[in-house]
Amino acid sequence: MCRELTLQRDLLRHNDAGAAGLRQRFAAAGVRVVNLLSSPGSGKTALLEAACRRLATQDKPPRLAVIVGDLATDNDAQRLRAAGLPAVAITTGQACHLECAMVEAGLHRLEHQGIALAQLDLLLIENVGNLVCPAAYDLGESLRLVLVSTTEGEDKPLKYAPIFHSADLVVISKIDLADAVGFDRAATHAAISRVAPHARVLEVSARSGSGLDALMPILGLAIPATR
Amino acid sequence: MCRELTLQRDLLRHNDAGAAGLRQRFAAAGVRVVNLLSSPGSGKTALLEAACRRLATQDKPPRLAVIVGDLATDNDAQRLRAAGLPAVAITTGQACHLECAMVEAGLHRLEHQGIALAQLDLLLIENVGNLVCPAAYDLGESLRLVLVSTTEGEDKPLKYAPIFHSADLVVISKIDLADAVGFDRAATHAAISRVAPHARVLEVSARSGSGLDALMPILGLAIPATR
Repeated sequence: MCRELTLQRDLLRHNDAGAAGLRQRFAAAGVRVVNLLSSPGSGKTALLEAACRRLATQDKPPRLAVIVGDLATDNDAQRLRAAGLPAVAITTGQACHLECAMVEAGLHRLEHQGIALAQLDLLLIENVGNLVCPAAYDLGESLRLVLVSTTEGEDKPLKYAPIFHSADLVVISKIDLADAVGFDRAATHAAISRVAPHARVLEVSARSGSGLDALMPILGLAIPATR
Repeated sequence: MCRELTLQRDLLRHNDAGAAGLRQRFAAAGVRVVNLLSSPGSGKTALLEAACRRLATQDKPPRLAVIVGDLATDNDAQRLRAAGLPAVAITTGQACHLECAMVEAGLHRLEHQGIALAQLDLLLIENVGNLVCPAAYDLGESLRLVLVSTTEGEDKPLKYAPIFHSADLVVISKIDLADAVGFDRAATHAAISRVAPHARVLEVSARSGSGLDALMPILGLAIPATR
């Protein structure tokens, strides 16, 4: 067990060094970076698709790109590209989280597609769907966004405390399903503020678009005018 | 990276040895053991609560006990005890999965509560909510049950292939929400049969009880007569 803990510490230290390098690189390029984390199926991809649709109504939409991590398939990257977002898939195989070396590989592949970091306003990193392991891996992001959907039950922040504790912003997704699933709003907000009292909290529906306009400025984006 | 892989292999080998020991112990005690795995919030605890309610209608209900793994809180164990199921919580801290040593600790705590393995018909192990890491850890179970809820999206089996591939039984949970979430039944079943062609598949609603009577015999339990 000791050997495992020591190795884990070494790996995290190695990743932290990588994160410091990435953070410098992002700052030099003047790009904001958001790390999206959640359970599988909480709606990370759907949120990005909805945000992209909303931004497309702007005269001069911001320039975004996405690095998407998944064990297998590039389904999410395909969905995002179909929504008009440049996206590269990092297939992690057995790995349960993204780490800095994978983000660097993703940046390299974006560059190969002619997308330089300095041209972007916002880089989105959609992590592997997992409420445990990705918490410990800093990816050099400026903002950590943790999603929890109304369908998952109100005690998830208490049960998966480290990842919520690490969040700058908690998005309660699928708010359109609140009635259908008997969502306990008060208990969910109480659980979030207990483990992440510093975090902003937003209720969002990717389906109806509700909450998206409140999300935009937090991501550093202007709210598109409604046409 | 090599050192990490070697250590991972050592840990899995150590766990496999533990699983062989547990499997012998379970066989000697004549107890069936089910390992329940899913994302956070797919309804593992709700399924066990519903099964327990259904079984309570029997004249001579089977003897069950549950070992529940969570990073933090004993919420699920409390819910299960309230439903009439003897349950002990294993709090894993940072650990993203249960392993054999934790199951042994859980058995020890059940024994301290006067619940001997040989008295049980069925031992349920509710794993940490995680579709990645628990896949590799054999717990000596006789049946591996992986849940995926209708709210999570139809491509989860393809994206988290190893855990579905390891399943004996896949339960599609929250089937009562199928219409509300626009559940794509055909795509979900196709995804499951692609990565787990050997697995049985059941659609279940813990809320309405639908599918529970089909589940009982697979768990080795008699279907309770409807009173």
